[in-house]
Amino acid sequence: MFKKNLERRSRKKVIVRQTNRHAVLREQLIDAAERTIASKGLAALRARDLAREIGCAVGTIYNVFDHIDELVLCVGSRTLAMLDAALAGARPAVRESSRTEAVDDLVRLALAYLEFAATHTVRWRALFEHRMSGDRSLPEWFVEQQHWLFAQVEQPLTALLPELDREGRRILARTVFSAVHGIVALGLEEKLVSLSLSDLARQLTAMVRAIAAGREKLRAIDSVAGPADLRRD
Amino acid sequence: MFKKNLERRSRKKVIVRQTNRHAVLREQLIDAAERTIASKGLAALRARDLAREIGCAVGTIYNVFDHIDELVLCVGSRTLAMLDAALAGARPAVRESSRTEAVDDLVRLALAYLEFAATHTVRWRALFEHRMSGDRSLPEWFVEQQHWLFAQVEQPLTALLPELDREGRRILARTVFSAVHGIVALGLEEKLVSLSLSDLARQLTAMVRAIAAGREKLRAIDSVAGPADLRRD
Repeated sequence: MFKKNLERRSRKKVIVRQTNRHAVLREQLIDAAERTIASKGLAALRARDLAREIGCAVGTIYNVFDHIDELVLCVGSRTLAMLDAALAGARPAVRESSRTEAVDDLVRLALAYLEFAATHTVRWRALFEHRMSGDRSLPEWFVEQQHWLFAQVEQPLTALLPELDREGRRILARTVFSAVHGIVALGLEEKLVSLSLSDLARQLTAMVRAIAAGREKLRAIDSVAGPADLRRD
Repeated sequence: MFKKNLERRSRKKVIVRQTNRHAVLREQLIDAAERTIASKGLAALRARDLAREIGCAVGTIYNVFDHIDELVLCVGSRTLAMLDAALAGARPAVRESSRTEAVDDLVRLALAYLEFAATHTVRWRALFEHRMSGDRSLPEWFVEQQHWLFAQVEQPLTALLPELDREGRRILARTVFSAVHGIVALGLEEKLVSLSLSDLARQLTAMVRAIAAGREKLRAIDSVAGPADLRRD
């Protein structure tokens, strides 16, 4: 009995040690992948290089992660957290709910997004370049984390368009985010647009203010009636 | 003398034949690269596979093209021409210069862009994913072709904001294009937004109409005075 207990305890210790080793390896691999993705981009990520850097076998990576996609998403999750913090940090702690303040809030968010993308261009691009391989779908926890980001845009939209229902606001927040993303993404792509950062910030500001000023038109999103399509005119 | 002339003529024939062979190979390689890029995307493009498909040596590709980037740009040029034709085809042949018509025109362009991207998703994505390797810059002829695309957006902007100067309009056209691109690009990316095409079309329409309705704010792009930045508030 005494011996059995000892055995059980020692087996437990082994499991704990293995779990710890597993957790440590996991962190080391995410750190290494993060360094590569942040400096050289997604295309530079190779399982063999990661294994060499950490000093483990290539097969070990697949013991720790179900697939390379999972590892890439762990790095993406860190980027999303950084971005979320950058957006939150750009906004005043106490927010008025006036329409003017809501517009200023949207402009701040857009400029903070531009600043983040300009500062962390390589890892920010990786976030959008990555696609799950095969038929895999994005895990729920990652989708959830993206929602936090959109939720920051939903807040000022509530003050701007209080009559929009929750679902309408949720979708509009993504559309506004996407428009800002497009201006930032193509603006930072020198091959398409060659603007200074301050000129780009000016374009972005004017655009967000125009969208907010034309908010009456955004109500159409809520209505089911009326053709959205003009192509058949 | 007679013999010399004959020699010269035969040398000329050889050169013409080589030039023809060069031109034929070039077309064959662009065709093959286009098939790959349009069906499997940019990442699937391999010099070795192309050479095998055409039945030439890998080295031959580099005799015909300065580098793989040039080949990719030739395919990109075809995609740009298709897109340009799709946008032009969506607009009425005779255009009024009223403000209402200009807004409808912008909406038509945005919806045609969405339709093109939804139909030719893989090759359209390749257009934006491709980056010149090393320190190479984009050739002038490709930049010029991109300009045609933006020029289509400039036309309705002239009616919408006649007071904007040419340079201001040129830059604004790219910003509007970029905003539409962002909504389309993230909208078609299922991992971020899951909207039906008709819902996406509705979002896009409302957004373009809002931007047009808030056009007074777009004039700020022209002015040099006034901070575009709210972050230091």
